[in-house]
Amino acid sequence: MTVASATSAGTVPATHPFLAACRGAPAEHIPVWFMRQAGRALPEYRALRAKVGMLESCRTPELITEITMQPVRRFRTDAAIMFSDIVVPLAAAGVDLDIVAGTGPVIAEPVRDAAAVAGLGPLEPDAVSFVADAVRLLVRELGPTPLIGFAGAPFTLASYLVEGGPSRTWARTKALMYGDPELWDALLGRLAQITTTFLRVQIEAGVSAVQMFDSWVGALDEQDYCRYVLPHSRRVLAAVADAGVPRIHFGVNTGELLGAMGEAGADVVGVDWRVPLDEAARRVGPNRAVQGNLDPTAVFAPRAVLADKVADVCARGRKASGHVFNLGHGVIPETDPGVLAEIVEMVHAF
Amino acid sequence: MTVASATSAGTVPATHPFLAACRGAPAEHIPVWFMRQAGRALPEYRALRAKVGMLESCRTPELITEITMQPVRRFRTDAAIMFSDIVVPLAAAGVDLDIVAGTGPVIAEPVRDAAAVAGLGPLEPDAVSFVADAVRLLVRELGPTPLIGFAGAPFTLASYLVEGGPSRTWARTKALMYGDPELWDALLGRLAQITTTFLRVQIEAGVSAVQMFDSWVGALDEQDYCRYVLPHSRRVLAAVADAGVPRIHFGVNTGELLGAMGEAGADVVGVDWRVPLDEAARRVGPNRAVQGNLDPTAVFAPRAVLADKVADVCARGRKASGHVFNLGHGVIPETDPGVLAEIVEMVHAF
Repeated sequence: MTVASATSAGTVPATHPFLAACRGAPAEHIPVWFMRQAGRALPEYRALRAKVGMLESCRTPELITEITMQPVRRFRTDAAIMFSDIVVPLAAAGVDLDIVAGTGPVIAEPVRDAAAVAGLGPLEPDAVSFVADAVRLLVRELGPTPLIGFAGAPFTLASYLVEGGPSRTWARTKALMYGDPELWDALLGRLAQITTTFLRVQIEAGVSAVQMFDSWVGALDEQDYCRYVLPHSRRVLAAVADAGVPRIHFGVNTGELLGAMGEAGADVVGVDWRVPLDEAARRVGPNRAVQGNLDPTAVFAPRAVLADKVADVCARGRKASGHVFNLGHGVIPETDPGVLAEIVEMVHAF
Repeated sequence: MTVASATSAGTVPATHPFLAACRGAPAEHIPVWFMRQAGRALPEYRALRAKVGMLESCRTPELITEITMQPVRRFRTDAAIMFSDIVVPLAAAGVDLDIVAGTGPVIAEPVRDAAAVAGLGPLEPDAVSFVADAVRLLVRELGPTPLIGFAGAPFTLASYLVEGGPSRTWARTKALMYGDPELWDALLGRLAQITTTFLRVQIEAGVSAVQMFDSWVGALDEQDYCRYVLPHSRRVLAAVADAGVPRIHFGVNTGELLGAMGEAGADVVGVDWRVPLDEAARRVGPNRAVQGNLDPTAVFAPRAVLADKVADVCARGRKASGHVFNLGHGVIPETDPGVLAEIVEMVHAF
C-alpha cells in the first residue's frame, strides 16, 4: 500500500490510476468508470428499484451504498460514483418535485419570477446528511477504490426548475436568461450555493473526487455560455478547490465549449463522443485532463468494432495530459452489463 | 426583371439574392428564410390543421400550396420551402406509418432485418405526383420568389425506420449500422433511391433549390459519418447535381461533421447555432456557402439582445463565400410570428 492521499478519507492511495490520471501524472493503467454505471442496465439494480421510488433510493444511505457498489463489484471499475440524481439537493433545499419514471424530474411549481427565485434555498448541509452518511459507508466499503461525488451544475439545475421538467429546446430557460439577466444571475447564484454545499458535504464526508454535471449546457453557444453560465460554474468549482480533490466537469454537445468549461476551473473536462479525444485535449488546453469518450451505443456493436473504438479512444487519450476512460454520455439502459465488463478489461490491457 | 435561371421554372431571376448567396456570388441583400417557417408558429396554419391530419396535409396539392405560402405572405422571406414531412416519400414507397401529434412519425413495422430492407421501395415518381402538382401550383403563385424542395437524408430516414419512431440515443440504428454493415448499406442504398427520386420529382416540377435534411446525423462522430453515411448522401447529391439547382445539406449537432457534409456534395452547408458562422465557414471550406445560424430561442429574447445576435450572425456570415440567413434549427412552435417578421427586416437592413 502506498501513501494515502491527504485529502481523501479511507485508504485510497494517492498513486491510484484514477487520481493520477486526473492530475495528469503517469498512471499504472488507463483508469475507467462509466457514467450511470449504477442504474437500469444492471438486473440487481432493477430488482432493488422495483420496490423503491427514485427519490427514496437517493435518500436512504444503505440503498445509496448498495446501488453505488453494484457496478464496482461487477466491473471492477477504477472508481465508484455516488448514486444520486441532480435534483436531490433541490428537493433537500425545499423544491417540491418528483422524479417520474419514463419522464424525469417534474417540478410542481416552475421557477420563473423573482418571488420564486427568492424562495429558493439555501441548502443546509443537515438537509443532505443522508448523503454524508452514504459517503462514509461507501468509503469504508470501497477501501482502495475512489468514490466520486456528484452534483448538477447551476445551468442544468436551472433548466429543470424553469422548464418544470426535461426539455428539448430549453426555450423558457433561455427566455429568462436573455430577458432578465439580473434575475437569471440571482437564480444561478442560489443554485451555485446549493451545488457548492452539496459537493462540500460529500467532500467532507470523504469522496476522492467530484463531478459536476452540466448535462444540457451544450444547448448554448460559447458566447452565451461565457456570459450567463461560466461565472456561476466557476464560483462552484473555486469554492471546492481548497479541498484538493479532482474536479471533473461534464456536459454533452459541448464541442465548442470545451475550452471555456476548462477555464471554469475543472481539473478534468468530460467529453462526449462527437469530438475525437486528441482534438478535445487540444481544445481543453495543456494543463487539464480529459474524460471520455466512447460512444455509448458502441456497446451494441460486434466485439471487433467495439475493440477498435475502445483502442482508438485510448490511443487519442494518450495525447492528453491525463485521460480517464468513460463513455461519452451515460450508460444506455438496454446495455448488456457483460459488455461493460469487457470494456474495463480492454482499457486495462491497452 | 433580369434573366430567368435556366434551371428553375417560373420567373425567378438568376440574380435573386437567395440563388446568388447559394452560389457564392454577390447578393443584393443577405437572403433569409426559416426552417419550419410553415408550421405551428402561425395561427393560420393551426386553424387549417385543426381539421386535417398531417399526412393528408402533405398529400393534398392545394393544402401544401396554402401552407407553403402562409409564411411567405407574412414575412416576405427570400424563399419558400415546400411543406412536407421527411417520412412522406417513405409512406409513398409503401411504408406503413403515421405522424402522431406530439410524438412524430410512428412506423408500424420497424425495419430491422434483411426481409424488411428487401421490401422497401422503390419510390415511383407517380406515387408522389401530388408533390409535383404542388410545386407547379407554387411556382406560379410565388412568381419571382424561389421555392426550395425538401427531402430527408438516408441516415435520418433510416433512423426513423429502424427505431420505429423518434429516439434520443439512436441505439437500434447504430446497432444495425455497426453490426451488419452490408444490410445497413442495402438499407441506405434503398433510401438514397427514395430521396433522389423525391428530390428529382420536385426539381423537374420547378423548384429553384433543394435542401436535404440529415437532422439526426450529428449523433455520429466523423469517422462513423464518413464510413457509414457519407457515401449514400453523396450519391443522392450527385444524382441531382446535373439539374444545376443549389443543394443545401443540413443537420443539428454537426459541428464536427461540417467539412465532411460539404464533401458529400453540398453547395450550401446548414449550420446549427453552436458553431460561430465564421468558424463554420472555415470548417466547410472555401468553395461552399453556409446557411444559418441564429439560435431558435433568440426569438424569446428582448429586441436589443435579438438584434445583437442577428447582427453577429450576419457579420460572421460575411466571412463565408456565401451566406443564407436562417435559424440554427426549426422555428419553435411557441415563437411569436411578429418576431420572425422583424428578423427578416433586420437581416435585409444589415
